[in-house]
Amino acid sequence: MGVKSFVEVHPDSHFPIENLPYGVFKPEPSSEPRPGVAIGEYVLDLSVISSAGLFDGPVLKGSDCFHQPNLNKFLEMGRPAWKEARTTTQKLLSCMVILKLAEFSTITEPALCNNASLRQKALVPMDKVQMLLPIAIGDYTDFFSSMHHAKNCGTIFRGPENPIPPNWFHLPIAYHGRASSIVISGTDIVRPRGQGYPSGGSAPYFGPSRKLDFELEMAAVVGPGNELGKPVDVNEAADHIFGLVLMNDWSARDIQAWEYVPLGPFLGKSFGTTLSPWIVTLDALEPFTCDAPKQVPPPLPYLAEKISKNYDISLEVRIKPAGQEHSFVVTRSNFNHLYWTITQQLAHHTVNGCNLRPGDLLGTGTISGPEPESYGCLLELTWNGEKQLPLAETSRKFLEDGDEVIFSGYSKGEGYNVGFGTCAGKILPSLP
Amino acid sequence: MGVKSFVEVHPDSHFPIENLPYGVFKPEPSSEPRPGVAIGEYVLDLSVISSAGLFDGPVLKGSDCFHQPNLNKFLEMGRPAWKEARTTTQKLLSCMVILKLAEFSTITEPALCNNASLRQKALVPMDKVQMLLPIAIGDYTDFFSSMHHAKNCGTIFRGPENPIPPNWFHLPIAYHGRASSIVISGTDIVRPRGQGYPSGGSAPYFGPSRKLDFELEMAAVVGPGNELGKPVDVNEAADHIFGLVLMNDWSARDIQAWEYVPLGPFLGKSFGTTLSPWIVTLDALEPFTCDAPKQVPPPLPYLAEKISKNYDISLEVRIKPAGQEHSFVVTRSNFNHLYWTITQQLAHHTVNGCNLRPGDLLGTGTISGPEPESYGCLLELTWNGEKQLPLAETSRKFLEDGDEVIFSGYSKGEGYNVGFGTCAGKILPSLP
Ligand SMILES: [Ca+2]
Ligand SMILES: [Ca+2]
Ligand SMILES: [Mg+2]
Ligand SMILES: [Mg+2]
Ligand code: NI
Repeated sequence: MGVKSFVEVHPDSHFPIENLPYGVFKPEPSSEPRPGVAIGEYVLDLSVISSAGLFDGPVLKGSDCFHQPNLNKFLEMGRPAWKEARTTTQKLLSCMVILKLAEFSTITEPALCNNASLRQKALVPMDKVQMLLPIAIGDYTDFFSSMHHAKNCGTIFRGPENPIPPNWFHLPIAYHGRASSIVISGTDIVRPRGQGYPSGGSAPYFGPSRKLDFELEMAAVVGPGNELGKPVDVNEAADHIFGLVLMNDWSARDIQAWEYVPLGPFLGKSFGTTLSPWIVTLDALEPFTCDAPKQVPPPLPYLAEKISKNYDISLEVRIKPAGQEHSFVVTRSNFNHLYWTITQQLAHHTVNGCNLRPGDLLGTGTISGPEPESYGCLLELTWNGEKQLPLAETSRKFLEDGDEVIFSGYSKGEGYNVGFGTCAGKILPSLP
Repeated sequence: MGVKSFVEVHPDSHFPIENLPYGVFKPEPSSEPRPGVAIGEYVLDLSVISSAGLFDGPVLKGSDCFHQPNLNKFLEMGRPAWKEARTTTQKLLSCMVILKLAEFSTITEPALCNNASLRQKALVPMDKVQMLLPIAIGDYTDFFSSMHHAKNCGTIFRGPENPIPPNWFHLPIAYHGRASSIVISGTDIVRPRGQGYPSGGSAPYFGPSRKLDFELEMAAVVGPGNELGKPVDVNEAADHIFGLVLMNDWSARDIQAWEYVPLGPFLGKSFGTTLSPWIVTLDALEPFTCDAPKQVPPPLPYLAEKISKNYDISLEVRIKPAGQEHSFVVTRSNFNHLYWTITQQLAHHTVNGCNLRPGDLLGTGTISGPEPESYGCLLELTWNGEKQLPLAETSRKFLEDGDEVIFSGYSKGEGYNVGFGTCAGKILPSLP
């Protein structure tokens, strides 16, 4: 695209003008939360831009969607609003060059660039702000869409014969997760207590989880949604997805293993789920689409897409042990390892008539690749604690108190990145 | 208690002055939703009572909790507010007798009884109002707490050897349900489409569910809730439960059977869940407590209650086939068949630090009794369609289009009932 922002953006930044992800922040501790867009090391305050009358397109003019404590109202407005906001913010943040944007052919907009007092008010240094959960999440669903993860978990929990259940290749398996305990990156996670699998004929273990794990996931943020009883067609599902975030689905494997038969994961997951603060839009990710894997057997008609897309997003997990200065990479994976696409996930979710609402969250499931170095959780990386994972001078079977787990992800363009920043959380010891 | 209301209440009514359940209603189609209390064949409009200054106790005076479109704010205020509201409404609705209430020793309050214009505004005939969902439900959890139901389902789905999984007697098993598709009694339910279990080596069936079922449940409505990371003690759990409703957890057994391994129920449930409109408070149910069943093995300390209470609530399910004038009873059960108490459910839910929020819903799971006539769903009543359930001149294996399913429930006092009214929904055919 070749547009440059007048805001200086380091070539390694996750947030150049090609990205412009959405979040919610407080400029000062006492401020009201408001939506913003990341640009380099700044946050563009959309409430200020809106109050200045600069959202003057046909869809957003007069809307109070950027004077809200979350993005739900903006999400509900759908792709026309999202496109217009992207065009407007790109125009405002670019400068001093003739440019051609998707929908307008025009010279650059000096309203922000040439107005020092507005710039001062609207561009807040990122290191000064507090990021908040960008959405009010009515329902959170977690899928199970990496074949490698399904195979590894099946082998560990149910043995090497037919580790992948027969339904897995016919439908994107999912379960309902807990919405209340979803927290923003940087929130500490208290090690959960619970019942663990009894050994032999003894009573179940009760106490702090001994097998605390992360799960490397991403999640789709739902836009307009659908009415109860009215499924979304798989070929229209992309219009219902605003963008993606990084997600750590913290998991207590000992609690999960004991409780999950027959109704699925519950307390092994519901103590906390961490999201990255910036929602990267599907529009920003469009240059990084790639073919989705060929599906055999072919999906049923309601899951058969005219164009089946995945995204090339490099993912990395690091652990920073307590007291250490540095963090260490424990796995590298990629969003494109998913077997079921996010549009198939969304269409499947609604095929029974279930309604999605703006701000609902659809987790992908743990994103494991085929190689052992690309597995997306410690359960797989240490094969349920059978082996140690080296971590600088120490090692891990599962997470220890004080460990900080840091996810990052980005797509590499020519001379720029479209990145997600980080999704981080530190383990605090259980209550006594 | 011997208090009578000046509002005439038929002896068979579910809503005498001993009950006073809470709901949310619109007096006219164009009105704003507001909280109300059921009394006989009337609804007492709490927004009117509040505006008249009659909530003048120390907790509720000046609060806008009854000028809200749902009960969440009132629920968040906790038991002191609930007690005060009960005392005030009982006093206002009683008349012409000297009475002794729990906390006041006083003569009756003539403010409503003797004020014709206020009575006219505040008491709305129930058959004129539209009832709405009384709570905004952040998260909905469904337990699995009837041993008879667990045993029957296990036998049907996994065979007669060890039908109850080994974890069942150690913890109240549960899964997260879908909050968005919870609807109020009277809302039609569209038969879901989905994938059903393939027979033999064939591809999975896709189409309208062939095994649509109801599940007879009740659900607890959460009050103040708890902070993330801070579990609720089982002996304090009752202070976090406002009351109970009837709940129909509609279930598509063919979809459920195919999808539920290994992550639990998803689309087999998420197309709709129906609630009764009136929340009956634990205070109103207090005269109907009974001993909870003896638990063997004894529960772990975090689930061991000083006093373990159940409630004697008679439950009944009727089906009214399309075009028929009458409905026919298909099962009779009782809330006291539950093995795990609602306070144990709540304590277990939070033991890992999971936070509950005001208005969260905890379903009991299907309430089946020991006798075949007390099974709580068609799956059990027809043994997964192996036998027909007689229904007047016809019969059922599963629900047919046009069937209306009507739950009712009440506790029988001396000369009065504390009732839940009905929880009803009619099946519409699938979309073409
Ligand atoms: Ca997961
Ligand atoms: Ca159920
Ligand atoms: Mg989680
Ligand atoms: Mg349901
Ligand atoms: Ni260094």
